[in-house]
Amino acid sequence: MGARFGARSADGVTIGIGDDAAVLRPPEGRELVWTVDAQVDGQHFRRAWLGPADVGWRSFVAAASDLSAMGATPWCALSSLCLPDDLDDDDIDALCRGQAEAAAAVGCPVVGGNLSRGAELSVTTTLLGTVTAAVARTGARADDGLWLAGEVGLARAGLLALERRVVAVALEVAVDRFRRPVVRVEAGERLAGRAHAAIDVSDGLARDALQLADASGVAVVFDERELLDHMGDALSEAAAALGEGASLRALVGGEDYALLAASAGPIDGFSRVGHVEPGRGLWLQTLGGGRSPIEACGFDHFASGGGESTDRQQG
Amino acid sequence: MGARFGARSADGVTIGIGDDAAVLRPPEGRELVWTVDAQVDGQHFRRAWLGPADVGWRSFVAAASDLSAMGATPWCALSSLCLPDDLDDDDIDALCRGQAEAAAAVGCPVVGGNLSRGAELSVTTTLLGTVTAAVARTGARADDGLWLAGEVGLARAGLLALERRVVAVALEVAVDRFRRPVVRVEAGERLAGRAHAAIDVSDGLARDALQLADASGVAVVFDERELLDHMGDALSEAAAALGEGASLRALVGGEDYALLAASAGPIDGFSRVGHVEPGRGLWLQTLGGGRSPIEACGFDHFASGGGESTDRQQG
Repeated sequence: MGARFGARSADGVTIGIGDDAAVLRPPEGRELVWTVDAQVDGQHFRRAWLGPADVGWRSFVAAASDLSAMGATPWCALSSLCLPDDLDDDDIDALCRGQAEAAAAVGCPVVGGNLSRGAELSVTTTLLGTVTAAVARTGARADDGLWLAGEVGLARAGLLALERRVVAVALEVAVDRFRRPVVRVEAGERLAGRAHAAIDVSDGLARDALQLADASGVAVVFDERELLDHMGDALSEAAAALGEGASLRALVGGEDYALLAASAGPIDGFSRVGHVEPGRGLWLQTLGGGRSPIEACGFDHFASGGGESTDRQQG
Repeated sequence: MGARFGARSADGVTIGIGDDAAVLRPPEGRELVWTVDAQVDGQHFRRAWLGPADVGWRSFVAAASDLSAMGATPWCALSSLCLPDDLDDDDIDALCRGQAEAAAAVGCPVVGGNLSRGAELSVTTTLLGTVTAAVARTGARADDGLWLAGEVGLARAGLLALERRVVAVALEVAVDRFRRPVVRVEAGERLAGRAHAAIDVSDGLARDALQLADASGVAVVFDERELLDHMGDALSEAAAALGEGASLRALVGGEDYALLAASAGPIDGFSRVGHVEPGRGLWLQTLGGGRSPIEACGFDHFASGGGESTDRQQG
């Protein structure tokens, strides 16, 4: 199992794959940050759209992004695979390779795990990271700026392109982002000691921003102009190829694993996309100068009915 | 989610359920021990035999036992549940209650987790423990005694009773052990600084002992008399009710989560069941005074063909 995951030791890992459990020596003076994420066939992905290596990659990234949202540096991982009979050895190798590629990209080796048979493919990844002082969702303050690192909406546009069988050059980047989303490791590390609150964008920018607003007891106001400037042409062109507006795609697209933070001052690698106010809920300062409430909306995996129709109100 | 798991804080847990990840302050001067275990419907259990609370309990115990096998004290847990549509709210509550009951029994609260839909029920539990010096599988030495804490064979006898629909008073304890196996937390803690090697008995005593022997590069010799003395009447009576020998059931029964250790001297709470020699493989010093090789045999979940027929050679 170790070789398949490209497993190697990480700093402080004294026993890795092959014993009952991994043994780690935690770095002194740092907190541990710990998360688990599961990606299940038919719920979070469909094998028709993703090769097994992509499935392995995405699951790892989803977990790693949680650590970055807390300001942590990923440290090491355990991987638990549930493998159906119709996955052959090459598929399993590819799945583990995808995990190993993500682990290398994130700098967080797989040091152990678990293999099990099952009727349905699922990949559960648990990661430990370390941080001097973790950033929670709860600390946003009125007058904080709202800061974003990474793309929003592209991965969802890629999923829609696959669902609707739309093929266009403008959608190729989007499909790639759906298959191989990127963890904002360095941006995440810059949050520690600087951001008052942060969250990663896994369910859609609007939905995750509302979680941060509710947890902090504040209102979040997006600036549509700043948001579109941050996203640039890639999202506009992908949205146009789908016959939709870029703002809608930016607000409801999930699984890009961007990082959203509330901070008094700027943070390297983050663009300003709005601000925090006293009050509750989520608002959009539109290009036209008006202000509209944004209802909670986002990315219910494949259940495009409710989320999309709500979203169209702000489109 | 937090309330369902009976979640509460543990020492050093600064952020629990409700944020992107849990935040922990590791105790100074101790190593961390980290494991993940998955229990999948149809592979590790059948819902006809186990209520949802039992499913939650067993998954937690399987992971916790890995920590005890390393000499560690369980610290805290993350629970990842994959829930099919035919599980109603009461079932989900019961599943989480089973996890919470096991967490309380082990002294290791669930501080976070993940919920997902899926076609098949699975429960993946990851646990962190702490230890002054972890005990690996690799350190057994010739002339060490072989020491056992906890029951072996009873859980498997309980599973066979359910599979074969055998009802007998002598099997009630066995069925209970299958449904609610016990983690040897205190016995595990006594291994640290004392045992040269240890493993938990999840796949069957013979199979797990062979893993320890192979990892340490030694031969392991069980003493049938000592083994039967350790097990006492409960296993003899359960085996008799199944029409089988107690030694067979002791050697091939898995999922009791006993602890097997190699140590120069006795360890509180452990019984001597054999010794370690130079050489390779696994041997049984029989009641009759002879010595037989024991082939690798154990508990392939529900695949009773290979394991059982091999086992019969030593029965």
